[in-house]
Order: sequence, then structure tokens, then C-alpha cells
Amino acid sequence: MSWFDTSIMARKGVAKGQAGARHHISIEDQGTFHYVYGPYADPVLEVEPGAVLTVETHDAFEGKIGKESDKPTEILNFPYLNPQTGPVFVKGAEKGDALAVRIISIKPRGPQPVGTTCLIPEFGGLVATGDTAMLNPPLPEKVKKIKVDEDGVYWSDSLTLPYEPFIGTIGTAPEIEAISSLQPDYYGGNMDVPDVKPDSIIYLPVNKEGGYLYLGDCHAIQGDGELCGVALEMPATVELQVDLIKGHGNGWPQLESEHAMGFIGSARPMEDAARIAYRELVRWLAAETGQSEEEAYMLLTMCGKVRVGNMVDPKYSLGASIEKRFVK
Amino acid sequence: MSWFDTSIMARKGVAKGQAGARHHISIEDQGTFHYVYGPYADPVLEVEPGAVLTVETHDAFEGKIGKESDKPTEILNFPYLNPQTGPVFVKGAEKGDALAVRIISIKPRGPQPVGTTCLIPEFGGLVATGDTAMLNPPLPEKVKKIKVDEDGVYWSDSLTLPYEPFIGTIGTAPEIEAISSLQPDYYGGNMDVPDVKPDSIIYLPVNKEGGYLYLGDCHAIQGDGELCGVALEMPATVELQVDLIKGHGNGWPQLESEHAMGFIGSARPMEDAARIAYRELVRWLAAETGQSEEEAYMLLTMCGKVRVGNMVDPKYSLGASIEKRFVK
Amino acid sequence: MSWFDTSIMARKGVAKGQAGARHHISIEDQGTFHYVYGPYADPVLEVEPGAVLTVETHDAFEGKIGKESDKPTEILNFPYLNPQTGPVFVKGAEKGDALAVRIISIKPRGPQPVGTTCLIPEFGGLVATGDTAMLNPPLPEKVKKIKVDEDGVYWSDSLTLPYEPFIGTIGTAPEIEAISSLQPDYYGGNMDVPDVKPDSIIYLPVNKEGGYLYLGDCHAIQGDGELCGVALEMPATVELQVDLIKGHGNGWPQLESEHAMGFIGSARPMEDAARIAYRELVRWLAAETGQSEEEAYMLLTMCGKVRVGNMVDPKYSLGASIEKRFVK
Amino acid sequence: MSWFDTSIMARKGVAKGQAGARHHISIEDQGTFHYVYGPYADPVLEVEPGAVLTVETHDAFEGKIGKESDKPTEILNFPYLNPQTGPVFVKGAEKGDALAVRIISIKPRGPQPVGTTCLIPEFGGLVATGDTAMLNPPLPEKVKKIKVDEDGVYWSDSLTLPYEPFIGTIGTAPEIEAISSLQPDYYGGNMDVPDVKPDSIIYLPVNKEGGYLYLGDCHAIQGDGELCGVALEMPATVELQVDLIKGHGNGWPQLESEHAMGFIGSARPMEDAARIAYRELVRWLAAETGQSEEEAYMLLTMCGKVRVGNMVDPKYSLGASIEKRFVK
Repeated sequence: MSWFDTSIMARKGVAKGQAGARHHISIEDQGTFHYVYGPYADPVLEVEPGAVLTVETHDAFEGKIGKESDKPTEILNFPYLNPQTGPVFVKGAEKGDALAVRIISIKPRGPQPVGTTCLIPEFGGLVATGDTAMLNPPLPEKVKKIKVDEDGVYWSDSLTLPYEPFIGTIGTAPEIEAISSLQPDYYGGNMDVPDVKPDSIIYLPVNKEGGYLYLGDCHAIQGDGELCGVALEMPATVELQVDLIKGHGNGWPQLESEHAMGFIGSARPMEDAARIAYRELVRWLAAETGQSEEEAYMLLTMCGKVRVGNMVDPKYSLGASIEKRFVK
Repeated sequence: MSWFDTSIMARKGVAKGQAGARHHISIEDQGTFHYVYGPYADPVLEVEPGAVLTVETHDAFEGKIGKESDKPTEILNFPYLNPQTGPVFVKGAEKGDALAVRIISIKPRGPQPVGTTCLIPEFGGLVATGDTAMLNPPLPEKVKKIKVDEDGVYWSDSLTLPYEPFIGTIGTAPEIEAISSLQPDYYGGNMDVPDVKPDSIIYLPVNKEGGYLYLGDCHAIQGDGELCGVALEMPATVELQVDLIKGHGNGWPQLESEHAMGFIGSARPMEDAARIAYRELVRWLAAETGQSEEEAYMLLTMCGKVRVGNMVDPKYSLGASIEKRFVK
Repeated sequence: MSWFDTSIMARKGVAKGQAGARHHISIEDQGTFHYVYGPYADPVLEVEPGAVLTVETHDAFEGKIGKESDKPTEILNFPYLNPQTGPVFVKGAEKGDALAVRIISIKPRGPQPVGTTCLIPEFGGLVATGDTAMLNPPLPEKVKKIKVDEDGVYWSDSLTLPYEPFIGTIGTAPEIEAISSLQPDYYGGNMDVPDVKPDSIIYLPVNKEGGYLYLGDCHAIQGDGELCGVALEMPATVELQVDLIKGHGNGWPQLESEHAMGFIGSARPMEDAARIAYRELVRWLAAETGQSEEEAYMLLTMCGKVRVGNMVDPKYSLGASIEKRFVK
Repeated sequence: MSWFDTSIMARKGVAKGQAGARHHISIEDQGTFHYVYGPYADPVLEVEPGAVLTVETHDAFEGKIGKESDKPTEILNFPYLNPQTGPVFVKGAEKGDALAVRIISIKPRGPQPVGTTCLIPEFGGLVATGDTAMLNPPLPEKVKKIKVDEDGVYWSDSLTLPYEPFIGTIGTAPEIEAISSLQPDYYGGNMDVPDVKPDSIIYLPVNKEGGYLYLGDCHAIQGDGELCGVALEMPATVELQVDLIKGHGNGWPQLESEHAMGFIGSARPMEDAARIAYRELVRWLAAETGQSEEEAYMLLTMCGKVRVGNMVDPKYSLGASIEKRFVK
């Protein structure tokens, strides 16, 4: 028996965590990509709970940065950035439910060097930006193309980094808003939390009928905070299993893995992202164990864990979690 | 000669600041109101630059809070809040231009008591909210209905406040996003800056063809910061003159009055809103006077003025300005 | 009768607002200046409540920046910056009291050009700093020396700014801490709020016996936020009248003028400074008028005023106030 | 050979990482404890580089919270909180050097239940505080006493947490400031970063002759962020080895362990703490490997790690680190 059999998805999902019909969305199937998370797009696919999806995603630059001499400022056309595959309509999903998305695998896709990172002027965690506006001169722009396979990230002749893939951007549609795929928020989006990786399950709040699942922006590896604003971006093939939790009622993305349960908050300043994630966790822990909120709060001061996802996007994302062995 | 004749609007507007055709948008004309600033709605009206509009706006609660015993949490249906009139399509407006909107008058509209203010749980500047999430118990909700006319705001038997009306929410559509009318941003929106008042001109960035002017949320009076999250909300009749500045290129809303020129920034944390507004002002001042950015920066350290609009919305809004007499 | 006769100082001061003995502290009397607000220094003077002080202050650079070709980075010796006159021991002052300091006049002192402003690398509101650490290159350093008299600030041949002097740094000693005079906090310090000016009274919390009044850092003029980190700094002669309010119990500096009453909060991020100032004001207003805190909160959402003092110091300072005519 | 032999301490320390004379500071030896980090106290001990210290520390409440029915608000006497042992004068230490402090062991000391945690009104990460001032009612205060030994933390009958001790507060004296031991900053202090634990070395900037090492506030276990403001506080016996790195020149605390090298930044808002820590790490990495700052910045976007220490103290503390295997 795998831990998955005791997950919320397996216990409470409409499909009871059972794999259903398989679907494939290729780049060509998708055709037109999306740059906002919203309810105004037509679904690319309609599925039943339990569906297993194999999805091809573009990298965050839609593959336009092809070589190290390219200039991002000339190639990238804001706001047409971070193209998203989807939306996938999940039958039966209604406001107040959650989509459960089990991430099965993430593989790089396309010719080498498949990985791209870069410095973009006025973007990143250690430079002045449009939001944290300053008069300092920008850093020079710079592109780095890097070979990636499932064995490693070949950073330089002397340094190979581990392949630790995850989905940078995944979420559902807001009810009436359509928000840039560069932004994370209560519905998911561009959270850039490295824990959203194979062998984990993310529970995304449903805000409108069908949920409208979008995803994209896979990373081969990323440090905490996505420091320069860009991880190791790659086109990918992602395998997912989607289920539906009726009336789950989570206000923010919930993340489950074999050993931990957590929530992801997105806000500025960063402490507000931490507060959101931890308040959700306090409430979940209290409900799960029958403790009072004050008791759960005191237990988390002992053993809560925080992961910084991004400190560069329009909102910063942090995950707060607790090890399952402490949930009793 | 009025100061208006030397304004940017009069000097650079397509209509040269001349009043053109008159249009009226009543509540009935509008029919369906909007709760997002976006490009996905159909224009309610199409006008030439120079058009003079008389617009009826709902209050931020769409008139649903009728008496002091009403409970906002039972009546208000998030996200269907802060209903906006519009969008108005301005012919010739293209990305990179600015809509110039001269505010002529703002009058309360409807039966007394026409003004509403309230305390809404988890909303406001001095309470825990969904963004600044805490475990403290909320304050009790509370509604206050107040008589307002053009002579005053009748707060209590012993205290009459001045009638100082302004437009809380006004802006253009983003290019591809549709963002809650509760939020302010680079396109305007729910800035809640009291200087957006009669005898001023706001220059709003155009992000898509036609500009798509929206407005609503008039306030009879408001303190700096809109402290409890709600000002004195009122349904209103607003008179505006709209012009078009080709290629104006402002990244954020610019505000001109007889004696001052400024910009409005919206961000969290609050210092980022101030930085945005001041950086825009530094750049404008340098371009206008031929000073270097460093010189403009040093002059503003002497005589820049800051006004806190809101400290309660999804982004906080601050205006930074300079008196025109110091611009030389 | 002047408004002063109805001030808190005149009504509740130990000296009932009556002018007492006159004292003078010259640069020579002071001898050694202080770079921290703390209890570890010996008082330069001991006075009775009611004392009228004429105090000579250095400019924030201790007069070391003498000409426009000087390089601040070579001349300034951190942390020996912003020299303070004092401490003055006020007899009878105990923890929980407040020193009332009426500002009578501020005059520039010394040979022209008496005013200094400058750009200091890694310091200022629109540049990367040690606190908001970035990798961008700094702006070039730059010094500007400016003639100032009581009629004006002679910025350039074509631009004379008004002379609007105030005290940038004033406060009492913390109980056990000694904190850089570059920082503002609950005891006052480097608030840089332009309303701390002639014909106003500041009430400073007493944290230890004698209160230990320090001051320095006068400015000939300053915009909101002290944008580049430095105002128009000048050596000055300041005339003050000092009284003592027993058991006043204010947690933060309170500021009274003819028409307004307010509080100054200092914190990061900026919204926390606004929250502090407004919470103090809510509590004062409720106590003063017998309203509930909720009612005071709602009234301030109508008519509270916020002034941004500094957005450059280790904590940002904002004042929140209400016009006295609305306090009933 | 242990990793320690290749540490900065062993390679660059005046004592070359060799253990020197042993010293003991008991509670009685210390006598008077300190509540500020500053240069105004007399050293309790003077040592040569290489000294091995066994230090008894109080818990953060100086042992005054003895039972679960105690009320912190009645017992605790602000600002006399978080008592510190020291200062220890290290011979030869001068401004610009670093003290290297190798943490050898941390053991609980005293009668059971030796651990204390509590909820203190207006203090903590998920409640309104004096800094993030709100009008919401506070949570009730609450005390929990917990048995702790080197095998575990006996949270409840059904839940034993691991014993993961670390030093919550450790640092050197500022040059002229004396700052509350509740605050972390560039000199260390109340960082509450759980990585400051046995088998790690912290390099603390020296700001004045002798360095003036203080420490206290040991925790038996703590989650990321120290969520409710208090960890599991315990009196402890700490064994340390102290060395001196001449001219090390780090601006902020540097932390070395077997597998990682990092820096700790402390600031508000939280992103500024992350920026400080990461900027220090970028500069160190560039200097260590000969890469440019831009290259180091891009490498850290791939593999930098962030740990949230506290989100409750006057400044928030975050550590940023890189695994040593990636430093080439």
C-alpha cells in the first residue's frame, strides 16, 4: 500500500483516487495558450474525476529564447508571458469544491539544451523592479542555456545540479477575474513552490463550474525564492491524475505528500504570505485533531515548517506545513 | 482664463480640451454593472474625444445596505462588490495613449440618508484581514446611514463634516487581465485617493483599443487611508469631460490640478506604492524641466507631497505630487 | 488668548504651560554630542518643568560637509552621524509621564551657504540600501550647498523654496536601550515629520527618570518622505519650552497644533507605521469624546489625515491626525 | 578528519580551530543578566581565541513562569526579558573581525518540566501586536509546561517531539548602540534560526574591541517562524568553542555546517531579511569561486535554500544558504 491510499484524494475524491480515462494534450492540441487565469477561455478538454492527463507545457518564454545571445527585452512581449495549457473542465466541479491534482511525473521535452535561465532587467529578487521602483541602473540582461535530462542539470563542466522538477504554475480559474499567469494567488497560479512536484497532491479551490485547471511553467530545478526571477525553465511533459473533492472548502492551495500536509499562501509583504499559509494550517490542524486553534497554534510554533517559493512574482508564495507524524 | 487652459489635457488632447458631444449614462442605461476592470465586457457607450459624460453610479454596495440593522455579511456577495459603470469606448485610443478625464462635478443621488458606512468583519486598516491573516476575533459588524447633501455630511446631531466628494474607483481596462474593481493598480481602479475630485484631471494609461473607461464608488468624504475600509459611500451623478492624449506613455495614473501635478502608485507594502508614485514623478519632472533624474530626486526631497489614498484595498494607493510653482 | 492656553500642555502640565527659567545650550556647552538615544549619557542640563531652552544644534553631518566637491562616503563616519544635543534632565519626570515640548522658533545658524543636501550611496527612498539590499549599481554621490535664511531657501537662480523649518530628530531616552539617532521609534528620535515645527507641541513618552530630552537634525524644508534620505540639513538655534505631564501614558509621540491633534508611528513596513499612529489616535479620540473605539474608527475613516514623515530611515514615520473641530 | 578541519574557523582562526583553555560561566558567576546587546556592560569573562566555554543560560523568561496557571502579563516585566549571559571579551578582537563560535552541545538544565511555552497577548505571528497594531481583541494568554530531555520533548501523552536544541539569541555588541535582546540585527541577537545548533559554527561581526559575546534563549525545539512568538524555552548548559577571524569583514552573521554555508539577515518586511541574507551569500559565493556576482546570483536561483527563523521579533530573521557541494 502506498501513502497515496490514505491521502485526502484517495479517501474523499469522487473517483476515490482511482485512475480513470487517459487524455493527452499536446502543444498542437492546445493550439492557443493562455496568459491569464480566468473564466473567459474555452476549455481545451472536459474530463471526469479520475482522469489521467499527459500534458505538454511550454517553458515560461514559450520557447522563444533559443540561444545565449538572445535579448529577453527584445524577444519577450509582456503581458504575453508564461503560457498556460488548459483550461481543463472537470465535470461536477462547483464553487466550494477542490480539484485534487496528483503529480505523477515531469519530464523535459525537446532538443538540448532544453533549459533556459536569464537575467531580465527590472525583474528579480535582488534588483529594483516595477513594484519596488528605484532609480538605480539595472543589471545587464543575460541568457544561459543549459542541458537538462532526468539525471541532472549540467550547469557547467565542473558542476552538475540534481534534476528536481516541479510545476511552477498551476491553478484554477477565479470566478470573475482573469489574472496574469505571472501572479500566484488563492487559486494557485505562479506559486513557484518546489514542493509541487512528483509524488505530491495539490488541492486547488474551485471557484466556478468545472474548476478550469490550468498549468505550465515547469522548472528542472529551483532554489528557494527563485532568486533572480527565473528558475531553470524547461518545456515539459507532465503526467497528472485529477480528482474532485466535493465541498472541500479550502480557501488556498493545500499540498499533501507522503510525510507532510501544508498550505501555500501568496501575498506581499512576505510575512503576509506566511500568515495566510499558517492560518490555513492552524485551522486545518484544529479541525483534523479536535484541538483548539490556540493549541494548534502552539504546536506549530514547535514543529511547523516554512518553504519560500518565490520572492519575485507579483505576490510572494510561501508554504507552511506539518509532518504527518505530528498530527494526532 | 482658467488653469484648465494650460493643463496637459487642453494643450495635448485630441480635442484640445474643448467640450464635445454630451452623453448620459443612467443606471437603467447601464443595466448590468461590472465587478472587474477588463477587456471582456461590451462597451456601454462609444464616444469621441471631448465628450462630456453625465454618469450615474451606484454606491459600492449597489444600494443593498438600506438600514442600520442590515448585516453586510448577509447582504454582500463577494466578489460582486463595487459595481462599475462603463466601459466607455473612446475612439482613437490605443495602447500607449492616455485618457484624460476632467472631473466637473459629483452630486449625491437618491433618497436620504444617501450615505452609508460600515464595519465589515476581516476588512479594514486596523483589523486582521484575509491578506494580513490572524487568529484574533473580529470586531462586530456595524452599519451607519448618514444624510449627505452638497452642504455637508450630517454625521451626528453635533457634528457636520464637510462635503468633499471624489471618485473612489476609476480606470481603464488592462490588456488581457480582468481585475476586481476592489483593487487599484497601474490602470487606476479602486485607488480611493481623495484628490481625484472636481476640478482635477486624471490621465489614465490606455492598454487596449478604446481605453475602456470604467468608474464608480463615489465618496462624500474620506480620510487619508480610508481607515476602516469603507468611506462615506454614496450613489452619485458624476459629470466628466473625456479627452485623449496620444502617445502620453504614462505607466501609472497621473493627476493634475490647478496647483499640483502628481502620480498615483498602488502596491504592497505601502512604501512600494510611494516609490512607484515618486519614481514616476521624478521621471516626469526631469523630462519636463530638463533636469537630471538625480536633480529632480533632490528637489522632491525638499518639496514633494504624499497623500495616502487607501491602506485597506488589495493594493495600497499613494499619490506623490509637486506644486506647479516649483516646476521650473 | 492663544490656542496654546487650551492645549494639553497648558491644561495639564506641571508648570501649567507657564514659561519658567531660561537656559541656553551652545555648541560649546554641549561639547560632546550623542549618536544614540539612551540612558547611558550624563545630562548636559537639569531643568524644572516650564524651562525655556535655547539650544544650538549641529546639522546631521556635524558640519563636516563644507563644499559641493566633498564626498560624503569619505567624510562621514558611520555610526557617528546625526549628532544630538542633550540629554536634558527634567525634574520630576518618571516612567509613564510625558515631556511636553513646545517649539517656539527654529533659526538657521552659521555662515552661508548654511544648507546642505546630498545623495549618499545605498541610502534614500528610491535606491537600494543596506536594508532593502540589491545588486544594482548605486547612484553617484553628490553634494549641494544652499543658502537659507528665514525668508527662503535659495535652491537655484530661478527657484526659491519657502523656509519651513522643523526638528528632524527629537525624543527621550529608552529605559535600557541606546538606539542610533538615525532611527525613530516610540520615544521619538529621527522621525523627520515636518509637522514638528514652530507653534506645535510634541508630547514624548518618558521611559526613565528625568526623561532625557535629546534633539538635533533641523531641516530648513523637507518634502513628505524625505525622499533621497536627506532633507535640507542646517545647523540651527532652537527655542523650546518644556513641561511635564504626569501620568500622560502615551505610548508614542503625540503632536498638537492649533487646529489638529495627532500621533506619530514609526515602523516597517510603512503600513505598520500608519497603523500605530491611527490606533493611538482611535484610542485617544474614544477616551476624549466618550465614543466607543468602533465609533472613533469610523469617524477617522471620514476625516483622519496622514502625513508621511520619512520613508528612508531604519523605521518609517507617519503621523495620523484629526482636526480639533471634529473632536466632539 | 571531521568537516570541522576544513571550516573557515579551523583554516583562518587565530587559534586555527584548536581548543584552548576551558572556562565555565554559571548562573551565579554571571550574577546580573543583560537585556540589551551593547558596549556599556562590563565583561563577565575575558578569553583568548580558542577558549572552550561552558555557559549556563536562563530561559527567555528568566525562569519566572513556573506553572501553567501563571499569567505572563503579570509576571513578565518588559523590557527586562530574554536575559543574556555575557559579555565575553575575546582578546585581540577588533572592529572588522569576526568571532567564530562553534556550538558543541546544548543540554536542558534544571528540574522538570524544564520547557515552557505560552501565548502572550499582543505578541506572536498570527495576532495583532504593538508593531502591527490592530483593534481586534487579543487571544487569551496561556502557559504550557513541558518535560524535555535529550531524548525528546514530551508534548502530550500521545505526542513526543524530537529534541532539536539551538541557541535562539547570540551575538556581539554594536559599537555604540545597546539594543534589546528581543531584537535580531546585523550583530546577531534574537535571530531564532534553528540552524544555530550543535555541530555548526556562527561567525559574528565584531563591532568593538573584544567583540563582547552574549548568548541566551535556548530552545528545545522550534518550528520555522517561531509562530506564536515563543518556542519551547528552556534553561540550558551550552558548550562553545570561540575563535577569532581577523579582518573577516562579514556584515551579517555567517553560518557554517558540514554541508552548507549561509548568512542570516534580519529586517522587516520579511523579504528584506531574505534580500540581506541572499546578497551576502551572492557576494561570498562570487568571492569564493571567482564567479561574477551575476553568475552567483543565477546559481543561487537554482539551488539557494532559505530558512525562516522568526516572524515574530522586532525584526524577522531568515537564513539563506548553499550546499557546499555546489560551491565550485
